[in-house]
Amino acid sequence: MNMNNLNINNWIIKHNLETLDYYSESETIFAQANGYFGTRGTLEEGCSQEIEGTFVNAFYDTEEIVYGEAAYGYAKNRQTQLLVPNSKTIYISIDGEVLDVEKSIIENHSRELDLKTGIINRSLKWRTNTGKEVLINTERLISMEYENLMAINLSLKPLNFSGEINIKSGIKRDKLNDIDENDPRVSGELKYSLNIYDKYCEKDLIIAKSKTNNSNLGLITSIINKVDNVIDREIEKSDESTDNNIYESINIKVVENEVCNLTKYCYYYFDKQDRLENEIDHKIKDFRELCKNNYGYYKESQEKYYNKFWENSDIVIDGDNEIQAAIRFNIFHLIQSVGKNGKTNIAAKGLTGDGYEGHYFWDTETYVIPHFIYTNPDIAKKLLEYRYSILSKAKDRAKEMSYKGALYPWRTICGEESSAYYPAGTAQIHINADIMYSIKKYYEVTEDLEFMISKGFEMLLETSRFYADYSDYIEGRGYCINGVTGPDEYCALVNNNTYTNMMVRYQLKFLVDFIESLKANDKKLYNDILSKFNVKIKEIKLFEDIYKNMYIHYDEEKGLIGQDDAFLNKKVWDFKNTPKENYPLLLNYHPMVIYKHQVIKQADLILSMLLIPENFTYEEKKANFDYYEKVTTHDSSLSECIHGIIANELGYEDMSYKFFENTVKTDLYDLHNNVKNGVHIASMAGSWQCIVFGFGGMRQIDGVLHFNPRLCDKFNKIEFKIRFKGRVIKVSIERDKTDYQLVSGKNITIVNNGEVIELVKLF
Amino acid sequence: MNMNNLNINNWIIKHNLETLDYYSESETIFAQANGYFGTRGTLEEGCSQEIEGTFVNAFYDTEEIVYGEAAYGYAKNRQTQLLVPNSKTIYISIDGEVLDVEKSIIENHSRELDLKTGIINRSLKWRTNTGKEVLINTERLISMEYENLMAINLSLKPLNFSGEINIKSGIKRDKLNDIDENDPRVSGELKYSLNIYDKYCEKDLIIAKSKTNNSNLGLITSIINKVDNVIDREIEKSDESTDNNIYESINIKVVENEVCNLTKYCYYYFDKQDRLENEIDHKIKDFRELCKNNYGYYKESQEKYYNKFWENSDIVIDGDNEIQAAIRFNIFHLIQSVGKNGKTNIAAKGLTGDGYEGHYFWDTETYVIPHFIYTNPDIAKKLLEYRYSILSKAKDRAKEMSYKGALYPWRTICGEESSAYYPAGTAQIHINADIMYSIKKYYEVTEDLEFMISKGFEMLLETSRFYADYSDYIEGRGYCINGVTGPDEYCALVNNNTYTNMMVRYQLKFLVDFIESLKANDKKLYNDILSKFNVKIKEIKLFEDIYKNMYIHYDEEKGLIGQDDAFLNKKVWDFKNTPKENYPLLLNYHPMVIYKHQVIKQADLILSMLLIPENFTYEEKKANFDYYEKVTTHDSSLSECIHGIIANELGYEDMSYKFFENTVKTDLYDLHNNVKNGVHIASMAGSWQCIVFGFGGMRQIDGVLHFNPRLCDKFNKIEFKIRFKGRVIKVSIERDKTDYQLVSGKNITIVNNGEVIELVKLF
Repeated sequence: MNMNNLNINNWIIKHNLETLDYYSESETIFAQANGYFGTRGTLEEGCSQEIEGTFVNAFYDTEEIVYGEAAYGYAKNRQTQLLVPNSKTIYISIDGEVLDVEKSIIENHSRELDLKTGIINRSLKWRTNTGKEVLINTERLISMEYENLMAINLSLKPLNFSGEINIKSGIKRDKLNDIDENDPRVSGELKYSLNIYDKYCEKDLIIAKSKTNNSNLGLITSIINKVDNVIDREIEKSDESTDNNIYESINIKVVENEVCNLTKYCYYYFDKQDRLENEIDHKIKDFRELCKNNYGYYKESQEKYYNKFWENSDIVIDGDNEIQAAIRFNIFHLIQSVGKNGKTNIAAKGLTGDGYEGHYFWDTETYVIPHFIYTNPDIAKKLLEYRYSILSKAKDRAKEMSYKGALYPWRTICGEESSAYYPAGTAQIHINADIMYSIKKYYEVTEDLEFMISKGFEMLLETSRFYADYSDYIEGRGYCINGVTGPDEYCALVNNNTYTNMMVRYQLKFLVDFIESLKANDKKLYNDILSKFNVKIKEIKLFEDIYKNMYIHYDEEKGLIGQDDAFLNKKVWDFKNTPKENYPLLLNYHPMVIYKHQVIKQADLILSMLLIPENFTYEEKKANFDYYEKVTTHDSSLSECIHGIIANELGYEDMSYKFFENTVKTDLYDLHNNVKNGVHIASMAGSWQCIVFGFGGMRQIDGVLHFNPRLCDKFNKIEFKIRFKGRVIKVSIERDKTDYQLVSGKNITIVNNGEVIELVKLF
Repeated sequence: MNMNNLNINNWIIKHNLETLDYYSESETIFAQANGYFGTRGTLEEGCSQEIEGTFVNAFYDTEEIVYGEAAYGYAKNRQTQLLVPNSKTIYISIDGEVLDVEKSIIENHSRELDLKTGIINRSLKWRTNTGKEVLINTERLISMEYENLMAINLSLKPLNFSGEINIKSGIKRDKLNDIDENDPRVSGELKYSLNIYDKYCEKDLIIAKSKTNNSNLGLITSIINKVDNVIDREIEKSDESTDNNIYESINIKVVENEVCNLTKYCYYYFDKQDRLENEIDHKIKDFRELCKNNYGYYKESQEKYYNKFWENSDIVIDGDNEIQAAIRFNIFHLIQSVGKNGKTNIAAKGLTGDGYEGHYFWDTETYVIPHFIYTNPDIAKKLLEYRYSILSKAKDRAKEMSYKGALYPWRTICGEESSAYYPAGTAQIHINADIMYSIKKYYEVTEDLEFMISKGFEMLLETSRFYADYSDYIEGRGYCINGVTGPDEYCALVNNNTYTNMMVRYQLKFLVDFIESLKANDKKLYNDILSKFNVKIKEIKLFEDIYKNMYIHYDEEKGLIGQDDAFLNKKVWDFKNTPKENYPLLLNYHPMVIYKHQVIKQADLILSMLLIPENFTYEEKKANFDYYEKVTTHDSSLSECIHGIIANELGYEDMSYKFFENTVKTDLYDLHNNVKNGVHIASMAGSWQCIVFGFGGMRQIDGVLHFNPRLCDKFNKIEFKIRFKGRVIKVSIERDKTDYQLVSGKNITIVNNGEVIELVKLF
């Protein structure tokens, strides 16, 4: 670990703030969120090194994309998740001297993030230039129960004086200081966080209103400061033309050795601009209600929420404290970051940074959702409901692309395609099948037929219609899917990417099987749904014909499956003569140079082995893994976890462990040297998969759980729980045995190392 | 013809200006140029409908390209040929009333372009509101002999009065009025032509200085007005902040029924900004010298130049006056547009419009140069010298792309790659081979060994080094060229584009043969050149190995050559259900949709049949043409000419004629409805190829001319001349016989319909 002032002890991440080394990185580590909004772990009073960021999930603006050379059907608008006003800000001053972590005389400065509550506790002793000493403690939480609320408790204890302390607590519009002018993903115009166009005070409540330029969204940011021993308080506003802040300046009376508290309540809410005006009064009332509870109330609520959460979601690793902490840290960030209201999703960097513009990718379905399906299926459902909410946009996109049905955007917030480089964007049409794969797994795990009928079926049908129209029947080959990009972004616009073809085949079979099951089980429902969506028998026959005759490119001579038609006929990248500093290749080679070689950025065919294991014999897995792993650079953080899982299955223990370690430690140990810009959500979720699908060897095939556990010798024992068809199953894996315990629910059969076992409730 | 106020009579294009219908189109038709600079056929006094454009070849500015999503190795800067100040402007007024073609009372207004001189003669009778009548005549020429000079002769003849006429003649900075805000190729900032930063008058000479923002170029525009019967003259300058013009206002005394003349001399010169300051005095002196000659001198010089030009370059068509005029018009525009100084080239729209930003493409070598090689080989040489002048940039580009040798830019002015969409830009690496093909043909036709030694060899070697490094040896296939785009831009980033592979093979063989011939004929030269360029025998062996083992994709089952590895495995575009208004496809379908189908924008494999006919048997040509022609949309103006030539070879007379007619009439008959934006240089040159390579069936194989003439029944006879190895050969083709006449030079053998003939000088 290079961040040597971070110290991890079981559930607690402790940060020694005596130095400001790795300060920006720690802001990401200490980021808090609840899925609705999130904020980076900056100090209340700020600091010159900070990369402040407060994000409200799916609160974004749009801007026209400028292309060097545009063409028909290109994504039109950039969508950017905005940095919203910062409500954490609290300045403390004594005798006119302001607490400043870089200038003041400070002792014992540290903070802790408790993964069991999501609360950050910070403490320090400050001695002013006039010799006054005060113990300062802040606690901060973003409520998991009340999605709009953040609460900060500040306590001050003068050690050698009684008198006055001034608190300035408000809403701040930040000047951004992490703009890379050479990075085309960042607008050169974006010098400040979102502007505030109106700010005022209603009794003790401060409100700031903001709106976007193009996306028609409005945001209210509101705070209330509750404080003991007020002498006087007044509002200070700064100029709109500069930083445009609003503070309440409060003089409080303090008594030596007595603790004085300030609780700051912060509230974020957004909606369409026109609707928001009508909602404000109601929302302010809601906020005032919330402020009636004291800080302790919310602290308790957090404890309750997280207790319940960890009950199901914890993974216990016996044998490596670092990895134990890292996996918990990852799981913690997943639950913090994920949108839970069906209208939002989970961004590539969660709510911890502005990388990838806050966009939602296939990362959700392929990396994150498996974790939630088996631990919090209600959250998985909300993520899929988000996809349903943008289905009409996906239909529009398919039409624009000249095809029937629906094509989901490669990257988006509002549902429109926002990828400005289609060969690694729109061309990744596997996004449809990735989502449908999740729906299938979700449906099997939860048996939630209502979801399927009300939303799942329509998504499945429309995306299948897209594929049926997009697939080309080629004489002598069968159905081909040409001109697409698979998961591996070091190949683009290829024909018959095997991952894509297999996933589409899997989805079409799921659709046909689902229709068949309706027909067998509920004839009325069957008729209704076919009629509602105008599905003719002929269309079902076409879906069937396609999945039964989908082309898969086998190279008989080489005894390999082609990643696509052309892959194995390309030259292998000259790895031997590629200096280490030339990775990731995409930063050092022109795309066409990369594309013409056998070189893979991230798990592609190997990912199919995980998702649809029944497509491969063991020998096929081995032969292809052995070949493809050697030409994979893992230049994406979505790669090593998948290779780690399959490596474990094939008995490559060291390789598997190395990939797992790289995955699980990515953020907490800043392995990619960019954690300051935010966490890597997919890799965090991937580390969960490494444990459950990797060491646990869990696969869900035809609605049945299979386990082929194989624990590496670094660990003594791994324990996790799985929710499945109403049951909770606790799995304890040791090197030589695995124990399955049915924690709740009816008896169920599973398959352990090929052997069917019935799990029976013990009492 | 839709432009019904244009009338073509043999060498003269007459334009009835009584209405302003097709006025913008006529500006292109009446554009004049000499290769150094050119100007659109606008009226001296302007008109509200005008799309003024004056261009100096290779006078450009650069601007950073903004990408939606950038990547390593993308072209960095846009290069844009600039509109320079307009020196044609002359306003005429009587009693304060200004001649205005849209408001004044005008009779007999017409103009003529004489293709035998390149001079435009315009005449009209103007009656002022006060009843004064004057005959006005202007003649305008851009000197072919003096590259910096344009001369305008204005004569005024008062019919019913003697008195004063005011002439305002100067340099104007134009407000642009043809900006398409939706066209990303046009900078939104470009509202005016190039700015003038300094303007002044030295005695009778007016000078305006301009400079570019980023490309470090400076331009002087200068005029001198020579006029009879001056009463008084003064300088008028307009404000820099607006249009920034400078005029000389001259009151002249006129006498009833006597002609009064004004000759306006205009001068353009540019150089690097820093150099230009030192050159100005010298250039002004040069201009003053030129002004010592009267207008008649330059008229005579034009006549002389064009007499000589047409002597070699004319094509006589007996049987169709429209086509006769059109082919002459095309040939005329080629000689006007082509850069002749070795530092410039010929832009896609010549010097007649700002389309394609004034860039040079492969159009030069593949379409234009064949015409010049066989009619004006000195000009072909200059075009190739331009390529040599940018060789160092091509070497830099290859390096940036991680390869050895040199890679020429797909589109450029200054030599740097300027294509903002690499799949249809940099990926067209066939540009190297296209240039080398021209060098081979030029060398065979001229036997210009000095050019080969001083320039050609180095280009050939460095581009071959690029190909040798770029080609991949693939076991079981041979040398493959993967990840490229061929001429057909409806397929992109394909493997083994046959055109590319054949052209590379051809070039490598040429290089090896050339080295062998040096070795055989001049051992010292051979050693010197190998040592100078550090060529080892091993490297020559590699070139040889590559050309001997180049992979060509044959589909045995279908009995076809693949356009590339994947083409024949794609689905054929659904032409039947594509409405006519959806062409060109690129404006109505997303690129990835187009790329996944068998659909071709422009001649690709068919072009190989023309360029390297010896690669194909007649049966192969027929089978492949029959197949590929059906899936070709001809959505590019570079396509029909090539298909027309091969169609003629295969005996498809009607198809061939249709393609030829569409090609030859493209501009003069505005077949694409966009001639107002400039001529289509490649298609103009293509029409010459249709005649010589098509009806004449001429091919140059191993340095010998072969003819397989086949005249369609629309014509009685076609005659053209060919310069070849110091000879001039006149070819007269009738339906049933062809006559070859050796006009000058020593006896030579040619092949007519497979039969060797010796041409003997008659006297």
